[in-house]
Amino acid sequence: MRLRNKPWAEERLNEFPQYVIREPEQRKGKWNEVFGNNNPLYIEVGTGKGRFITEMAKAHPNVNFLGIELHKSVIISAMDLLIEVDLPNVKLLNVNANDLRNFFNKGEVSRVYLNFSDPWPKTRHEKRRLTYKTFLSTYEDILPDKGEIHFKTDNQGLFEYSLISMSQYGMQFKFISLDLHNSEYEGNIMTEYEEKFSQKGNRIYRMEASFT
Amino acid sequence: MRLRNKPWAEERLNEFPQYVIREPEQRKGKWNEVFGNNNPLYIEVGTGKGRFITEMAKAHPNVNFLGIELHKSVIISAMDLLIEVDLPNVKLLNVNANDLRNFFNKGEVSRVYLNFSDPWPKTRHEKRRLTYKTFLSTYEDILPDKGEIHFKTDNQGLFEYSLISMSQYGMQFKFISLDLHNSEYEGNIMTEYEEKFSQKGNRIYRMEASFT
Repeated sequence: MRLRNKPWAEERLNEFPQYVIREPEQRKGKWNEVFGNNNPLYIEVGTGKGRFITEMAKAHPNVNFLGIELHKSVIISAMDLLIEVDLPNVKLLNVNANDLRNFFNKGEVSRVYLNFSDPWPKTRHEKRRLTYKTFLSTYEDILPDKGEIHFKTDNQGLFEYSLISMSQYGMQFKFISLDLHNSEYEGNIMTEYEEKFSQKGNRIYRMEASFT
Repeated sequence: MRLRNKPWAEERLNEFPQYVIREPEQRKGKWNEVFGNNNPLYIEVGTGKGRFITEMAKAHPNVNFLGIELHKSVIISAMDLLIEVDLPNVKLLNVNANDLRNFFNKGEVSRVYLNFSDPWPKTRHEKRRLTYKTFLSTYEDILPDKGEIHFKTDNQGLFEYSLISMSQYGMQFKFISLDLHNSEYEGNIMTEYEEKFSQKGNRIYRMEASFT
């Protein structure tokens, strides 16, 4: 999405520490304290404007959700959504996905969601794709053994790349749909982006993959 | 495809043992003698009317090709094509894919092609799909270590299933296209079926996968 410069964003994010967690390094190993329970923690890497993570939190009250987004000008919209719905089981983190090991112990995250990640189509940008092996290694280090990544995108090239990258990392697929909106899959929660692009007729691709 | 009963097929197949190899158990470990050279041997499991294997043989004179087809009423058409083109590096085998271990030593086959295999869409027929684990195990036993399967189909369900089945078997993907005819892939040789169904607008899916 187009990023607008919003110089006031930092200040406003700081006003709502109950939604956008400050000093996340201090929470490592203690996310159960942040949420006040021992429910499983699912994270979305690249949470954008937060619709997916918020709807997931509504649909699954016994799971804790954490939306991770690097861009302040974007996460501010997700924060506004959280203020509006005021759910106890969803919070945000304004950090870089490269650094996830700094914020979570091994197994502290029970599932990773990736939705409509930036495809970085140029070969020289392969390392920036969120399914590149260094990111897979990061997710593996915060998930339990056999932990799962659930990924969807409308970008054919990124989906092809991700199937190859994950299989070469040794991951196994448990679910694959090459046309999600014309499949029997139930309970799909759409992102803002997904709604827009599926209405244009784009296919949505979805997979569930586990480490081995 | 629809199978016609052709009672004369058996007799006619026996008339051309230079194209349709008889007593294939006797050739196990000796396929280099059948072809008169030590070139690599690529097989197509489910060769149908033989266009793919014949065109591949034309395009790759330094590879030996063997088309495997169970149905006599179908392989007869492939045989007629071989009689017409009379190439030294392509032959046929009228056997069941379940029995491949009876005809080849480990590593004697250098690559397996699966093209537009019967999708067997009903769950109770899963074991008949040519990418079911028992078939993968058979291919593994006749290929060298890290041997490859090259697979294409227009059947979305079979492609999804095959990605899952192969990854759960521990295979790795080297190439995936979710829309082959609109990709940069070069050198594609179409099957009869592929030409017909891609003209109708069906997407063609293709992958290369290797054992590990």
